[in-house]
Amino acid sequence: MATRRIQRTEESRRLLVTAAAELFAEKGYRQTSFIDIADKAGISRGSIPWHFGNKLGLLEAVIDDQIQVVLTLSASPAEERSSDPLDQVMGFIRLPVTRLFITLLAEAVEGDSPIREHYARLHAALREAVQARISEEALPAGTVPEAFAVVLVGALIGVHAQWRVAPEAVDLDAVHATLRVLLPEGLK
Amino acid sequence: MATRRIQRTEESRRLLVTAAAELFAEKGYRQTSFIDIADKAGISRGSIPWHFGNKLGLLEAVIDDQIQVVLTLSASPAEERSSDPLDQVMGFIRLPVTRLFITLLAEAVEGDSPIREHYARLHAALREAVQARISEEALPAGTVPEAFAVVLVGALIGVHAQWRVAPEAVDLDAVHATLRVLLPEGLK
Repeated sequence: MATRRIQRTEESRRLLVTAAAELFAEKGYRQTSFIDIADKAGISRGSIPWHFGNKLGLLEAVIDDQIQVVLTLSASPAEERSSDPLDQVMGFIRLPVTRLFITLLAEAVEGDSPIREHYARLHAALREAVQARISEEALPAGTVPEAFAVVLVGALIGVHAQWRVAPEAVDLDAVHATLRVLLPEGLK
Repeated sequence: MATRRIQRTEESRRLLVTAAAELFAEKGYRQTSFIDIADKAGISRGSIPWHFGNKLGLLEAVIDDQIQVVLTLSASPAEERSSDPLDQVMGFIRLPVTRLFITLLAEAVEGDSPIREHYARLHAALREAVQARISEEALPAGTVPEAFAVVLVGALIGVHAQWRVAPEAVDLDAVHATLRVLLPEGLK
């Protein structure tokens, strides 16, 4: 019985995080209410504070969830991965949920933004995932891993932005092929 | 007298575009009203329709203004430029007005966004500016100029995003140096 209750609790938590991610992607953080999230998840409104404390706690869970996805791209050794990280990242970019990153970014850069530090953790996790794969010897002379990670993560962020704005003008397959050529050996 | 009137007209147009860019950057397109813009510019409200038709016309002028900046980075021949395009772009990123690109991006990717096509012109101009500088021979084998432009413009967009979110975590000087090493000869 206890196990089943835990399963139900886990499941409602998951439903709430998924609903919140979709609503934040569509309407932004500020414009999304507990009521919207509970209604979309089909879960009682009172359970959100119980699970997450407040809306910022829910945002934190949404960001953590995306960071987990990023970490799985870099955590497993090459021989255990079913496909290579670049393929996975380029697939990830195409998922509807990644519009979330654009909507939240606009709010994250506002003065005194409550979500800025959480958004910053997402970027930091992306850069760390890249750095974990870079051997300094694989990089061109004159570049450092930290700055290379900013540039590569930047390229993925900016490719995603251009594609979201004008999918017909951005050939993601050609970009994928170009990134494969440009990346140092160790990162492929 | 006619010349002075034209000067005044040009000046009020310029004041309105500058005020609109600052307000769009801060509050987004939807949340900014003619009243906000006129008050900030210190110009009568009635003159906005006279200059720009409607708010979308004003947004168009703001985007055109930014595109002009981009075009000056790529238009003049190398020997006439006072500094190289990468230096100029990295300086441009640091300007307060470029927060505009992030705020408007979130609105541009909404379904049925009125500003999407104007935002798309901005990205297209950036890609064209890069492509105008790429000679196909300078690119690594297996890459095409269109996709390379998406990646390079993407890197600039995404470096900017990371820096806006966490300036303390992104060393723009190191990124600048890394981009200089990574870029093909013809583009430096």
